[in-house]
Amino acid sequence: MSMELHPSLRDDAKRKLFIEKSLATYFVVGPQDVAPQGRDLLTTVREAVKGGTTFLQLRAKPADAREILQMARAIDEILAECPAQSRPLFVIDDRVDVALAAQREGLRVDGVHVGQDDLPVSHASAMLAPGSVVGLSANTAATVTAADAVAADYLGIGAYHPTISKAGAGAGLGARRFAELVKLAQVPVVAIGGVTAADAADVAAAGASGLCVISAIAHADDVRAATENLAAAWKRAIA
Amino acid sequence: MSMELHPSLRDDAKRKLFIEKSLATYFVVGPQDVAPQGRDLLTTVREAVKGGTTFLQLRAKPADAREILQMARAIDEILAECPAQSRPLFVIDDRVDVALAAQREGLRVDGVHVGQDDLPVSHASAMLAPGSVVGLSANTAATVTAADAVAADYLGIGAYHPTISKAGAGAGLGARRFAELVKLAQVPVVAIGGVTAADAADVAAAGASGLCVISAIAHADDVRAATENLAAAWKRAIA
Repeated sequence: MSMELHPSLRDDAKRKLFIEKSLATYFVVGPQDVAPQGRDLLTTVREAVKGGTTFLQLRAKPADAREILQMARAIDEILAECPAQSRPLFVIDDRVDVALAAQREGLRVDGVHVGQDDLPVSHASAMLAPGSVVGLSANTAATVTAADAVAADYLGIGAYHPTISKAGAGAGLGARRFAELVKLAQVPVVAIGGVTAADAADVAAAGASGLCVISAIAHADDVRAATENLAAAWKRAIA
Repeated sequence: MSMELHPSLRDDAKRKLFIEKSLATYFVVGPQDVAPQGRDLLTTVREAVKGGTTFLQLRAKPADAREILQMARAIDEILAECPAQSRPLFVIDDRVDVALAAQREGLRVDGVHVGQDDLPVSHASAMLAPGSVVGLSANTAATVTAADAVAADYLGIGAYHPTISKAGAGAGLGARRFAELVKLAQVPVVAIGGVTAADAADVAAAGASGLCVISAIAHADDVRAATENLAAAWKRAIA
């Protein structure tokens, strides 16, 4: 069993900074996000990678485990074509077992993203290959400061704006409340939930490490251009 | 991390026969099976255990991972009260990660049951504590004889009869087709899908190792009596 991770994740000295830098332009996607546009998942991923997404999360709800594993294999093939320095990190939503199966197959799945209703971060970290990334969704002071959040490699805090991509995500936190939560966080943060390039300045000013989007890329007329636009807005915001 | 399994699973000489014997009266249950009866999951499990179920599968669809883990903790408490010789095996449907998390917490979750759309048996076996049980659902000659099926500890073959408990399970195989599939299987088999005590003789004659039910126990007026009835019918059938 070969456990492939991005080399920088295996190097303790580089790991933290590498993860933080990788959060800049974070794209969450699954079939449910692209089907309404008449696109397929892999074409969308390929274009987003060309556009410079730095972090990719496969969130295929409510697909079965074997189907998610098959998607991960196909995405791994796309990512394998990237030059090492521009290859995004790649995590799977919720299913730690699928991520571990992918790692056991030698795919470069770098970890998982879990929500408050998923397995605790501590379990996920312990199950996966050493160095794997485990991100956590949080949206309150309590969840941002909980032991589980401190143990995570990064937090996705949101919904920043009201969003249609996640049912039940509720009203948006807004820029001010988001900034308060970022201050409480002990690990890097991305803003998630209806985020667009127009939010880059506020999100950066809050001290967060990146923009995490579904719709802003998946629903764009031009996926590659939308990704480039997000990446450029973030670069300007942190310049 | 203590990995608790039934002691007989850790003993290679006893393991196979122990699993086969444990299949006699197999109960699959989740909140979705008991809510229509106005019962709760734990009461139902407790009564079924008193009635002599030999194998318990927690199948909580579509619950989140943390919720399933919480149910597993509660069921583990019930099972911990059983005398060792009457304690049923306990597996979790589909979520290998939840089963592994439970094992990492020292709960005695003995393994998983996976379907054709879940993770392959080989992955599940490799992830869980050594000796863990991995069962597989199958319903065709191809799936019964596939490498994945040969690697499983047992097969649930069905639907034996048409069933309302699993959407999409299709028309029943019937006793004759079931018997043909059992002959092809290289591991012990339970009949699943609308099975009742009235099927015990045919299922035993086919060479299977037990009756696997949802409704026959979960929907019974008296869960304990229904379990005793199934167990007694199976004992008569194999006598």
